[in-house]
Amino acid sequence: MHRGRKKVESSATAQRILAAAERIFAAHGLAGARTEEIARAAHVNKAMLHYYFGSKERLHRAVFKNLFGHAQRLIEAEKLPDASRKQLILAFVDGYFKFRTLYPNYARLMQQLMMESPEQFEWLAREYFREGHKQLASVIRKGIACGEFRRVDPGHTVINIIAMIVFYFSGAPVHSVLLGRDALQPRAVAEHKRAVIDLLEHGLFRTPARSR
Amino acid sequence: MHRGRKKVESSATAQRILAAAERIFAAHGLAGARTEEIARAAHVNKAMLHYYFGSKERLHRAVFKNLFGHAQRLIEAEKLPDASRKQLILAFVDGYFKFRTLYPNYARLMQQLMMESPEQFEWLAREYFREGHKQLASVIRKGIACGEFRRVDPGHTVINIIAMIVFYFSGAPVHSVLLGRDALQPRAVAEHKRAVIDLLEHGLFRTPARSR
Repeated sequence: MHRGRKKVESSATAQRILAAAERIFAAHGLAGARTEEIARAAHVNKAMLHYYFGSKERLHRAVFKNLFGHAQRLIEAEKLPDASRKQLILAFVDGYFKFRTLYPNYARLMQQLMMESPEQFEWLAREYFREGHKQLASVIRKGIACGEFRRVDPGHTVINIIAMIVFYFSGAPVHSVLLGRDALQPRAVAEHKRAVIDLLEHGLFRTPARSR
Repeated sequence: MHRGRKKVESSATAQRILAAAERIFAAHGLAGARTEEIARAAHVNKAMLHYYFGSKERLHRAVFKNLFGHAQRLIEAEKLPDASRKQLILAFVDGYFKFRTLYPNYARLMQQLMMESPEQFEWLAREYFREGHKQLASVIRKGIACGEFRRVDPGHTVINIIAMIVFYFSGAPVHSVLLGRDALQPRAVAEHKRAVIDLLEHGLFRTPARSR
């Protein structure tokens, strides 16, 4: 990382490059995307793109870093001060649903990466997912210790919570067929979120968080 | 479909072609796979492959049909006569875990298809997943009616059950990083299955199916 990169990446030009890159990497993958096309879509020249992000590979990683930053901010925004363990899990669910709704390119970026470059995918896991998983598992462990949660397997339960959200968005075209309507419609997404929380209320939490 | 195709497809030669095709489509996708390579791997000539399956596209669909047949047989094998609604859901979970363990190519075949051909993917959904989803949702609806299950949303709950299984296998490289060991090891898979059933026991079923 260059010194001061964080400041550089927050500039309007850098944000425009990141938005174009997100869209074009989602459509064509890392190998298929052309930096010329990204530069053109962002209304900058290639030298400018290079100045901000270096190589195509570094721009690709910057796209993920930028998206994970958005996810984290959305989740943090849901957290109340002095939140209980239950409220922390619900804040994650709320924030992550918001993230997947607001950033639809993310699903395809992840699928492209999984097919194209399993090594990069594992790098992401080590760099970003592992810490998030550890934090959520620790929330569950504490919730069990203080009697707020049932005695579940923390590591696998975190995977299950994420599965119920990620799978819904990633498989949206299939779920639209199954549900008989657009699975990404706000109402369908809200119904799915309710079903996830309902399962957690009874399967994870000791006392229902809401009445039905 | 040709008349008598079912009988043809159950021959040892056809099974050998299907096994080779499954592996090669999983590695290279529909567009990238070569029928020459599939024929060679199955120790038949191209004319034979064509006689059994027609075009590459039809062979590709036959691979999926064959895999869905295996999944269905594994799930059926778990069903007890006079099974309760709860036992039917548990039979699905058991059978589907077995299917994903025994047919590891399936994850990549699905990912390839999702990236390559959303139309084919939606065709699969209409042809195969919709019926399975309908049946499971109907089991849940009946379970609610007779008081065996909580009042959940049947359609979304089916998606959540499948999510917890599919996502675990599809994201196995990531889950290996998160869990700190091979997620596809029999012991890790068994732990995940236990966590899924545990969540359903409390989140879906009214009375725990097993003591812990």
